[in-house]
Amino acid sequence: MRAGSTMAGPEIERMIQLLSRLPGLGYRSARKAALALLKRREELLVPLAQALNDAASKLVECSVCGTIDTVDPCSICQDPRRDRSMIVVVEDVADLWALERAGVTNAVYHVLGGHISPLDGIGPERLNIGRLIERASHPEVKEVLLALNATVEGQSTAHYLTEQLEGTSVSVSRLAQGVPVGGELDYLDEGTLAAAIKARQRV
Amino acid sequence: MRAGSTMAGPEIERMIQLLSRLPGLGYRSARKAALALLKRREELLVPLAQALNDAASKLVECSVCGTIDTVDPCSICQDPRRDRSMIVVVEDVADLWALERAGVTNAVYHVLGGHISPLDGIGPERLNIGRLIERASHPEVKEVLLALNATVEGQSTAHYLTEQLEGTSVSVSRLAQGVPVGGELDYLDEGTLAAAIKARQRV
Repeated sequence: MRAGSTMAGPEIERMIQLLSRLPGLGYRSARKAALALLKRREELLVPLAQALNDAASKLVECSVCGTIDTVDPCSICQDPRRDRSMIVVVEDVADLWALERAGVTNAVYHVLGGHISPLDGIGPERLNIGRLIERASHPEVKEVLLALNATVEGQSTAHYLTEQLEGTSVSVSRLAQGVPVGGELDYLDEGTLAAAIKARQRV
Repeated sequence: MRAGSTMAGPEIERMIQLLSRLPGLGYRSARKAALALLKRREELLVPLAQALNDAASKLVECSVCGTIDTVDPCSICQDPRRDRSMIVVVEDVADLWALERAGVTNAVYHVLGGHISPLDGIGPERLNIGRLIERASHPEVKEVLLALNATVEGQSTAHYLTEQLEGTSVSVSRLAQGVPVGGELDYLDEGTLAAAIKARQRV
């Protein structure tokens, strides 16, 4: 019989195949995960199946900012206490979650759905950019903060967005680069140190 | 707001909590996995929910040997071409799968559901042992091969089983010491498994 099959019929094999497509799980760890699910049927398998069903049926992409929520527009876009004069642009929903967990901004968001990456065949047209330009053209919007990853792809995406936003009247900003809070100089890469020196602030 | 929450409502939070209980996934990687599921709703989220539902509704524990299958008795126990004179005892379903993938035995199996581990509060009564003694007492059974992990727990479980099987007329064997000490069956190549079965030794 072929390598990798499980002997327990197509149900388990299919479950393993799908689990192995999750980030962080290879085929072998997906098999372990499947087995853990089967051994803990009532406490884990059934509730997880239910949770995935719930997610599939209830969660929608916000037609304004592109995040995921149970309502559209999402609870952030609907929140009257949010400051609509600033739009914080992030690559991914996970980045939005990170900023919300930190509780560091009261602005609204815009989720691009990734970054420009010619090597992976991801051009600007694959990202949620048109809607951003539209939103940024609204008179109530004063600032667009590009909170993209400090990676090559993140920064070239930021560069592209800056160009696209030139036609609007918003001011475009990006996150400060420098030494992370609690960071030790000895452990930082040269790029970070160079950026921190270049952007040094008077005390 | 509290650390670890996702801003996207209880549906996603519950999905992450459940995913983080799978072996190999911590909270952070479970969040990444959940996000991957949400981003690939039709290709991944919906099919995985369906696969888990299928597994939960179709898979049963074999009342003879304790493995997991869609039928009871399982397809191995029902297979008329199987050699019922030998019972291969394994700790876990994954070990049975490993032996079947290797295709190194035509015998029937018995899944203990773990090993004796006093430190974890797992005594013999928690394992599927009574049914093994019953099966081994059947006149058609000539040999019981203890294919347990070459770990301390596996070997002390083997020792316990050997004592319990003394009252029956079966000959008890164990895998040859070709299995590396500390090794787990699920991680071994087919050649090693085949050699270990061929060189099995009387206890």
